[in-house]
Amino acid sequence: MSQPIILYDIPATDPKRKAWSPNTWKARYSLNFKGLPYKTEWVEYPDIESVCTKIGAGPSSTRPDGSPGYTLPVIYDPSTKSVVADSLNIAKYLDKTYPDTPKLLPAGTEAFQSMFLGNVAPAISLPLLKILFHRQCTGLNDPSEKYFRSTREKMFGKKLEDMGGEEEWNKLEPALAKLNGWLSANGPGRDDLLTGDRIIFADIQLASLLIWAKVVCGEDSEDWKRLASLHDGKWKRFLAQFEKYGAVDI
Amino acid sequence: MSQPIILYDIPATDPKRKAWSPNTWKARYSLNFKGLPYKTEWVEYPDIESVCTKIGAGPSSTRPDGSPGYTLPVIYDPSTKSVVADSLNIAKYLDKTYPDTPKLLPAGTEAFQSMFLGNVAPAISLPLLKILFHRQCTGLNDPSEKYFRSTREKMFGKKLEDMGGEEEWNKLEPALAKLNGWLSANGPGRDDLLTGDRIIFADIQLASLLIWAKVVCGEDSEDWKRLASLHDGKWKRFLAQFEKYGAVDI
Repeated sequence: MSQPIILYDIPATDPKRKAWSPNTWKARYSLNFKGLPYKTEWVEYPDIESVCTKIGAGPSSTRPDGSPGYTLPVIYDPSTKSVVADSLNIAKYLDKTYPDTPKLLPAGTEAFQSMFLGNVAPAISLPLLKILFHRQCTGLNDPSEKYFRSTREKMFGKKLEDMGGEEEWNKLEPALAKLNGWLSANGPGRDDLLTGDRIIFADIQLASLLIWAKVVCGEDSEDWKRLASLHDGKWKRFLAQFEKYGAVDI
Repeated sequence: MSQPIILYDIPATDPKRKAWSPNTWKARYSLNFKGLPYKTEWVEYPDIESVCTKIGAGPSSTRPDGSPGYTLPVIYDPSTKSVVADSLNIAKYLDKTYPDTPKLLPAGTEAFQSMFLGNVAPAISLPLLKILFHRQCTGLNDPSEKYFRSTREKMFGKKLEDMGGEEEWNKLEPALAKLNGWLSANGPGRDDLLTGDRIIFADIQLASLLIWAKVVCGEDSEDWKRLASLHDGKWKRFLAQFEKYGAVDI
């Protein structure tokens, strides 16, 4: 690898919370975990589509109106001249292209990880999304704030400030309680990672949701404290395992 | 092991479908998979509680009215004088007591298997339950048929014959489609088992649901043919992997 990989991410106003998006954190943690050199290109929300089109990153989704949806993370790897969109595709690409780095999707875990991403993570990320929306939005730079607010309020038919609250905590807490129960099946001392003893992509998925909450709410906020105190500090402890992979090149 | 393990199971009228219960199949497949000698004691539904009490098997659940619920499978292992109830507990017990046999819950899979049992299997077993209820019931011996019909009709507030149908297929098929998608993440040639290349307890859980449908409906029934034809014969192929572990000592 002669030149660093480029990671495209969405900036916030506050340098301390510059990397905040749970989706781009999945790619950032993946790169840091593998020890691959990279640098971040910061892209405001309204510019994501034009940047993706320019570098040749295809759409990662279809919008409700049928038009293509462009999202970050995207990476560009100058060593292979590859552009890869979507954090799971990035994880697969990195595993394949850099086989001497620790695997994010080791053989034997793919179906289970896919199940986690498809069935378990959304039960956590969806309520969290609504709890965090308005806080996240106010921390963005002006063009991103306007874009984020108008697209999300249209999508959900509500003001950002009218989402979240106890209703969403009442979904989030049971989802986390279930996950806590499943992790405990690994046995004492092995219940802080999905496979018990090594980090895989599904762990990174969960850590990305947790750092999102921590960064967006702030460590001293009531919401972060509430999340961090659940199940005897389970999620704070879970996230702490990722501190060494939390570097951001701001 | 000097004497065979005793497996307590619920009989049907027809010798060809004598072992039919998905829950006891989980224990039977586990024993056959590990190659452990056992023999079956057949217990009619109304006798389950008295047999469990007599051999010292605790209740495995609490009934809606708060009273203890006794269910099969239960095993008695004369070598250790242990009585174990519930198929997951039986799998754990067998892994621990017979460490030289293939593991049902290998280290690193416990949390994921727990997630599969808690979050994925019920989306398949609940609609299947309602599709199979009335067929299953008519194949039982008189005392079990009466007991099964009265307890289940009370539980669901409906006649067994009024459950099932398209409404349940419309839940079952998307749940199986999701699972098919997750399995395909293992890649070609590795997508017929959850970890890709070896049978674990969660695979046995799924196989037990499939053999239940096959045995209760009969191989020539429309319902079994419908299930067996989904996703290019995926589930028929999945179950075929368990034929060598399908022995029943009738």
